[in-house]
Amino acid sequence: MRKHRFSNIAIPLAVVWLSLFGLPVLALADPLPSWEAGEHKSAIIDFVKATTDPGSGDFVPQQQRIAVFDNDGTLWSEQPYYFQLAYALDRAEGAPPGALSDSLQTAVDDHDLATILAGGNQSLLDIVNVSHAGMSVEAFQNDVGDWLAEARHPVTGLPYTEMVFQPMLELLVYLRDAGYATYIVSGGGVDFMRVFAEDAYGIPPQNVMGSTGNLAVSREGGEITLVKQGDIAGLDDGDGKPITIQRTLGQRPIIAVGNSDGDVPMLTWTSEGSGPRLGVLIHHTDDAREVAYDRESSIGKLDQGLDEAEQRQWVVVDMAEDWRTVYDQTLNEQTQSEQSQGETARHEGSQ
Amino acid sequence: MRKHRFSNIAIPLAVVWLSLFGLPVLALADPLPSWEAGEHKSAIIDFVKATTDPGSGDFVPQQQRIAVFDNDGTLWSEQPYYFQLAYALDRAEGAPPGALSDSLQTAVDDHDLATILAGGNQSLLDIVNVSHAGMSVEAFQNDVGDWLAEARHPVTGLPYTEMVFQPMLELLVYLRDAGYATYIVSGGGVDFMRVFAEDAYGIPPQNVMGSTGNLAVSREGGEITLVKQGDIAGLDDGDGKPITIQRTLGQRPIIAVGNSDGDVPMLTWTSEGSGPRLGVLIHHTDDAREVAYDRESSIGKLDQGLDEAEQRQWVVVDMAEDWRTVYDQTLNEQTQSEQSQGETARHEGSQ
Repeated sequence: MRKHRFSNIAIPLAVVWLSLFGLPVLALADPLPSWEAGEHKSAIIDFVKATTDPGSGDFVPQQQRIAVFDNDGTLWSEQPYYFQLAYALDRAEGAPPGALSDSLQTAVDDHDLATILAGGNQSLLDIVNVSHAGMSVEAFQNDVGDWLAEARHPVTGLPYTEMVFQPMLELLVYLRDAGYATYIVSGGGVDFMRVFAEDAYGIPPQNVMGSTGNLAVSREGGEITLVKQGDIAGLDDGDGKPITIQRTLGQRPIIAVGNSDGDVPMLTWTSEGSGPRLGVLIHHTDDAREVAYDRESSIGKLDQGLDEAEQRQWVVVDMAEDWRTVYDQTLNEQTQSEQSQGETARHEGSQ
Repeated sequence: MRKHRFSNIAIPLAVVWLSLFGLPVLALADPLPSWEAGEHKSAIIDFVKATTDPGSGDFVPQQQRIAVFDNDGTLWSEQPYYFQLAYALDRAEGAPPGALSDSLQTAVDDHDLATILAGGNQSLLDIVNVSHAGMSVEAFQNDVGDWLAEARHPVTGLPYTEMVFQPMLELLVYLRDAGYATYIVSGGGVDFMRVFAEDAYGIPPQNVMGSTGNLAVSREGGEITLVKQGDIAGLDDGDGKPITIQRTLGQRPIIAVGNSDGDVPMLTWTSEGSGPRLGVLIHHTDDAREVAYDRESSIGKLDQGLDEAEQRQWVVVDMAEDWRTVYDQTLNEQTQSEQSQGETARHEGSQ
């Protein structure tokens, strides 16, 4: 390979050039390429520009630029059931004798969701506790990591972490580039979320909020271990979301994004703050590329939110119309290609 | 005033010069000028250098550089009683009839701490609830702000926020300059702490953990208000500290700093993590400039911590020996001077 004779000087010059002039150039590029042009995309971009332009009357100092995102149905899919429930069901199959009642164990082994749901919250808690209680946080998270590496979605056949929404990944990066801190505020368990949030979304553990169980300090073995208890200390859904945000961040967000009625209190509390605020609802309208559902859905119901959106000036994103891409096909093809290559390599290695 | 003819070009050149060469120059300066030279100061600086030098075997990526600090007795004084209790007592004087029992109200009005403490936790909770419950977080924080502006310490006569330890302010800045995120993990109430932590320590609300009461969502008046309830949801002391940190940050800190046995579990859990970890205890040895207390103190007792420090290789800071300054006298004199000037200005204005 020929080495360019000017490379020694060209690289530092390019760095200086980018440092000096890179930002305006980047600002001209489309920060949200997977979003169709239109009023919703414009509303988001206009808001970010107004709150980050020191000359704007809506300027928000960087310290206060906080954007919160629901996870299930907002950053990744949530049908036919929350992915964390898929984990709990997988781990409750063949649970130790006595962990579940015989009838519940049969329903779990048959993936008979109707019977499980008919048992109410106690059945769900019993199932969840098989995999979520009586172990250290570290042991739980290692097991979730193992599961995520192997498990596949029952409909798409994709790893769950590839069912993140490409337009939302772009929005997260766009906001961080604009000086916003991005946080997750999930109804799902905080320990579960933190296993993949950094790799999947670039959101580190300290920026993840979620539902919590109690923890107990154990000193068995001579060192401190934090052991997950089989109860719910804080349910981070509905009214629980503004409470969790206040407790954790001590302030209202500037931007709140969700997709269901469980996110409405978070969006409402955000919108009611003084100064510029942005509420966004992701409306699942796309039965071809994902699943269309809203007012009648048992998972991710969006009813009150649609009624209130206009009055509160929330941006209601129409997945079918506003998103050019749902999942990142490039990423998927790349991964599949890497998997094929991996298989080829293994075949070669085993010869 | 004569304008220098080269100023137009000199300023940008100075900026470039500082950008290119400023860091090494700063590294030569003493980052902790209020700390006496010695093994304790060296241990802290050596640890920070090792964990931030990419060529070191103890290098820690910036994302994981988390330092947690207790507040009372670690970042500011805590004698003769926690400053938050001073607030609660002030606000419980002349409480509405029925809020406190007659005998407790008398003890409060007389600042009779012995009688109050003899009543146990219920008496303390009753007193605290006069000022801490049944109001919105915002109303509470406004009231704390008003109190901090007016209240004076019974012994020093200083505003409480001027009783922060200058060497610790330097340590916080030094760590942040080295890419550490600095957090407070206080046994005090999180809503109380957040009123002054940003101004006093440069620590924004989202980096403050503390004890919490439950919150309730109220929609009285048509908007969401978060109302403080009169109970304790999470006591952030002792074993509660590692639990709060795990819940909030999802990871062990790299550095933990405290001053009492209530901080020992936090330091222990931090030290037991793999890789480089630093535990620091502030030992109150200075009866001339502050208050000397440790193993027998009812407030800020440090007994187990002193016993375990050597085995766990914690740095035990000797306030009398290691700190050249306790409070920032310059700041105090400056403030007093500003106050005198303010009084002069008022006198002039009223003529």
